[in-house]
Amino acid sequence: MHKTLCLALVAWLIAFAARADEGMWTYHDFPTGLVQQKYGVQITPAWLDKVRLSTVRLSNCTASFVSGEGLILTNHHCAASCLAQNSSKDQSLLENGYLARKREQELRCPTQVADVLVGMEDVTAHVAQATANLDEKAANEARKRTLTQLEQSCEEASRKSGSGPLQCESVDLYKGGQYYLYKYKRYDDVRLVFAPEDGIAAFGGDPDNFQFPRWCLDMSLLRAYDASGKPARTPMHFAIDRAGPKAGDLVFVSGHPGSTERLLTVSELLFARDVQLPQWLLRASELRGRYIQFSKASTEAARITQDNLSSLENAIKVNRKLLDALHDDALLERKRKEEATLRKGDTAHDPWSDIERVEQAERNIALPYTFLERGAGFNSQLFRYARTLARGAEERAKPNTDRLREFRDSALPRVEQQLKAGVPVYPDLEQVTLSFSLERLREWLGPDHPIVRKLLSNDSPDTLAARTIAGSKLADPKVRVQLWQGGKDALGAAHDPMIELAQAVDAEARAIRKRYEDEVEAPLQAAEEKIAKVRFAALGTSVYPDATFTLRLNFGTVQGWTENGTPVQPFTHLDKLYDRATGQAPFAVPQRWQQEKSRLDPNTPFNFATNNDIVGGNSGSPLIDTRGRIVGLMFDGNIHSISGGYWFDTEKNRAIAVHPAIMTTALEKVYGAKELVKELGVK
Amino acid sequence: MHKTLCLALVAWLIAFAARADEGMWTYHDFPTGLVQQKYGVQITPAWLDKVRLSTVRLSNCTASFVSGEGLILTNHHCAASCLAQNSSKDQSLLENGYLARKREQELRCPTQVADVLVGMEDVTAHVAQATANLDEKAANEARKRTLTQLEQSCEEASRKSGSGPLQCESVDLYKGGQYYLYKYKRYDDVRLVFAPEDGIAAFGGDPDNFQFPRWCLDMSLLRAYDASGKPARTPMHFAIDRAGPKAGDLVFVSGHPGSTERLLTVSELLFARDVQLPQWLLRASELRGRYIQFSKASTEAARITQDNLSSLENAIKVNRKLLDALHDDALLERKRKEEATLRKGDTAHDPWSDIERVEQAERNIALPYTFLERGAGFNSQLFRYARTLARGAEERAKPNTDRLREFRDSALPRVEQQLKAGVPVYPDLEQVTLSFSLERLREWLGPDHPIVRKLLSNDSPDTLAARTIAGSKLADPKVRVQLWQGGKDALGAAHDPMIELAQAVDAEARAIRKRYEDEVEAPLQAAEEKIAKVRFAALGTSVYPDATFTLRLNFGTVQGWTENGTPVQPFTHLDKLYDRATGQAPFAVPQRWQQEKSRLDPNTPFNFATNNDIVGGNSGSPLIDTRGRIVGLMFDGNIHSISGGYWFDTEKNRAIAVHPAIMTTALEKVYGAKELVKELGVK
Repeated sequence: MHKTLCLALVAWLIAFAARADEGMWTYHDFPTGLVQQKYGVQITPAWLDKVRLSTVRLSNCTASFVSGEGLILTNHHCAASCLAQNSSKDQSLLENGYLARKREQELRCPTQVADVLVGMEDVTAHVAQATANLDEKAANEARKRTLTQLEQSCEEASRKSGSGPLQCESVDLYKGGQYYLYKYKRYDDVRLVFAPEDGIAAFGGDPDNFQFPRWCLDMSLLRAYDASGKPARTPMHFAIDRAGPKAGDLVFVSGHPGSTERLLTVSELLFARDVQLPQWLLRASELRGRYIQFSKASTEAARITQDNLSSLENAIKVNRKLLDALHDDALLERKRKEEATLRKGDTAHDPWSDIERVEQAERNIALPYTFLERGAGFNSQLFRYARTLARGAEERAKPNTDRLREFRDSALPRVEQQLKAGVPVYPDLEQVTLSFSLERLREWLGPDHPIVRKLLSNDSPDTLAARTIAGSKLADPKVRVQLWQGGKDALGAAHDPMIELAQAVDAEARAIRKRYEDEVEAPLQAAEEKIAKVRFAALGTSVYPDATFTLRLNFGTVQGWTENGTPVQPFTHLDKLYDRATGQAPFAVPQRWQQEKSRLDPNTPFNFATNNDIVGGNSGSPLIDTRGRIVGLMFDGNIHSISGGYWFDTEKNRAIAVHPAIMTTALEKVYGAKELVKELGVK
Repeated sequence: MHKTLCLALVAWLIAFAARADEGMWTYHDFPTGLVQQKYGVQITPAWLDKVRLSTVRLSNCTASFVSGEGLILTNHHCAASCLAQNSSKDQSLLENGYLARKREQELRCPTQVADVLVGMEDVTAHVAQATANLDEKAANEARKRTLTQLEQSCEEASRKSGSGPLQCESVDLYKGGQYYLYKYKRYDDVRLVFAPEDGIAAFGGDPDNFQFPRWCLDMSLLRAYDASGKPARTPMHFAIDRAGPKAGDLVFVSGHPGSTERLLTVSELLFARDVQLPQWLLRASELRGRYIQFSKASTEAARITQDNLSSLENAIKVNRKLLDALHDDALLERKRKEEATLRKGDTAHDPWSDIERVEQAERNIALPYTFLERGAGFNSQLFRYARTLARGAEERAKPNTDRLREFRDSALPRVEQQLKAGVPVYPDLEQVTLSFSLERLREWLGPDHPIVRKLLSNDSPDTLAARTIAGSKLADPKVRVQLWQGGKDALGAAHDPMIELAQAVDAEARAIRKRYEDEVEAPLQAAEEKIAKVRFAALGTSVYPDATFTLRLNFGTVQGWTENGTPVQPFTHLDKLYDRATGQAPFAVPQRWQQEKSRLDPNTPFNFATNNDIVGGNSGSPLIDTRGRIVGLMFDGNIHSISGGYWFDTEKNRAIAVHPAIMTTALEKVYGAKELVKELGVK
């Protein structure tokens, strides 16, 4: 690589990043110099440690400790599964909210975990050594084995140490540019303390999702318990500043952005544009229609559908805006030019051209891979249990490093937690999703595909779904645990039709996964590592890696933006919530908020916008000021933030937070949760 | 324009057309010389007249006369609405089929018409004269007024002539390159004679739609009646050749291809790719899900949904393949190059750049135009009646040439036919579609759009739909006719909530339509006419115009194609139908066909493929041989035919026909319709 090129690129990229407040920085490479230079603020190692150790990763979101007794602040929508799992026909916690007035009333969230990142270890050299001089397929397999081995050793070492067992997870940063072991302290007993009604937490529902101005009290409180069943002691935690920030204030988001694709090559982006996103959107939109129509059958049908439907609608909005972003030929052209500056020499045989060939291969196997292995053909909770049991029995019989990665030893406790969780399974809803996905399996693979012939030569999608759901005993966690412990023999003896279905497709599903790993994943990994080296040689860690649902820190300021020439103010206030209400969901203000209206200050700040660079997974992240106090709770981005999956739009990409004032007001005046306010110690 | 350029382009385009058997030719410019040159066959004016006058245009399809007593052959799916309209809770004609054993049993298709093209008149000069020296908006309006005036004069003249009244419709060919008046003899009393069960007509259902090999008896027989209620005398009609064609035989399709977009510019194609198709597909896929879930509630729900669902699924398949086609950057690049050969001089101010600017404008108004004016926000049969009544009352008070075109005098008989037709309206199904479309109206225009605030500030989409549907009397044709005749006063006195809904949105809907006409339609028309002149000067009628649901003739041969290296044979046979059956819809063979299996020749040809260039609207077209006999009935294309909307793929685009042998066998042996076989005089 030419040095001049590198320097030009470095200059351009760094200038761009500096202008933009863009970047999801790791804690080990946080650009304290840049913050000092732009804002004159000194970020110390102690500050970073305090913030990191007060930040929590949930299974699906970010959160933070807000008291010394394990109290956790996150979004309402991050606790939605827990609320649904603890609801019944007679009592919908999603609809009505929940407040535990005593510790004993705190409700277990059976599939939730709370992780704190306590250590980070660079293992790039280990991986490089293990894969040196291997061909692509062998390197891909060796890489996985090595990471499994590193995780295993890390966990074994932690169990022997005095400080208690850790959860060790490998992380691939910069698409193979760096490998890290991230070490977490895990709490697997997480309980629900407080949640407001869905009507105020998600006021405006799907129509307002990703919109701003907004009025959403998207908060909930959970509590981590230790292994002995007592509230966790969490000396590292955040204080909350009730006053919140002013426009222009420097603020930080600490959290776990789930996934960005800013380092994808043009041919990878085109695969998303042409294949992945359109096909996903077609399926998801139809499923949305089925959910909505199903939910109209009864109040109970609406209740059991709500959580799934909200998640789906959120994902539809994200993916349709991502498709819009990829239809912007000017942005693709910018990507092409950026690639061109890096691609010197023989562009027919460089890693970018390797990826072009891989993407052609991926187009050929995308459908069977998506439907058979990735589950698009078998959308059913019971089926997912069945596949886990069937594969788990096979995989656990193998040495740790030879298994499918999701069954490596370090992953098993989480698998077991989910199998034994007493969460409701609704056969009617299962019938909706499974018959739907089998119909689409037949449509997209075609009626003459061997698997379709195998499954549907006498059955229709409806009858196959009905038969397997009705005959399966896997809704019972005791049965699942027994089959998990019993292994292959117990599975064979069970004659459970859902397990038999999972087994019937397993050979084909594994075969297409193997093809995917060999023909797509392995050459992609090899080419991406080559590109990472080119970029890394030029840029090092002066730029940030794509999001990977690992801990990141970013900085920005409180600010609105300009939409079609009109400025959007950064703060909303309580009065406008009432103005905007229609009395009909999702624009109905819950009764308690109507009753208390006259006692509340109409000028209470409600939601606000910042230019922090966040993405799904950051939900529930603490927004903190330079002193390390919480000044907001991130819960969404504006509509322009969605294309942030591919590139950060400085002018318009905004993150949205719940203001501490409305959270505190709600707890004090609307819900009468005085003990909690006291525990939070809000000032 | 440079002459050398023209000649090069002519040579290239003609060479391409000649190689491809591509082309939807008008009868007035059919390339007999090309057919003579390629196939050594002389097509005479008499042959063309005979074929044209034996071809029938239905409201939604093509058909043909097949006896001297008005008997009409078309597809089953072209008669699906008629079958649904004549069905009831106790008897589904779609499911069970129908056979009138006597003339008196023939069932009126209340919304169907049968048109025969009896005259064609070039009026290009009239339009040019009327629009000369006007600016774009004025020219657009003058053009419409002129066409309405020409139609009116033509119809008045026909009523005064001895040969009976004609329906006169203006046609825009080559996007403003030619204007014609097409003159039709219309039969508005069309009755159902025969239809097989949906299970055999559409064997394989949506999964097999646009697939080949196929086994679909997609036929039905209708009959045109004259004004006195007697079967029409139709001396011009086709004979049917039972033996059908051989592979390689020269064959012709006479019919009404609905719409192609082969002359669109790149920026128009990008609008379709980025805006139109993705948004339509999102809405349609969700509606599909709602229909399917709704239809599972009961047999009756399934019955009343079936026709809508089939049409929707067909359209989804078409539009998703069109989107795939536009994601093929290589084909867009070819379009760009073709444009570049025509674009000489100042490309920043030529008609192609005009269209680029128009498409930017269209992006800004596409959503309100689609939802408010094009009906995406009000998907309800009752609403469509209401809008027709409300607008009809306003428009008919104006002079003919000042009205919205759909209310010009020549269009009113068809409007009235539909208003007075006694077709069932199903409130439950209305609730599905109207609440769905109101929800999406709110989602896409946003909760704060003035129309959304107006309609949904106290109502939810569900409650608004329920209230307007329950309160409306427009399901009753007598009420509709009375309100149509009563005009504005009657409408005001009716206090029908659906009419009030239509009126509540009408000012905004008309306003956005006006903006669309002025900011999109007018400049587009002006630019397209300029491009048409450039093309027309070079090519004249040596190339064919885009499809416009007007009569076209094309030629091709019976042939299969090669799919992923494997040849697909052009004919299928009866035996494989039985092999492929699963016993479950849509792969269940109807009982009659199971019972008669042993009496039928397993080698009977069933469906076959040709390389004729057809598209939706050609359904039901007669496939004819050089002697002018029917040798097949077009009903579909293969999956590659869908991109034919944008460009003809010589290698893979194939049309699919029902073979005369299976049609005759079915009538004779399965349905015992001996009288019909006799009337058809099949040889």
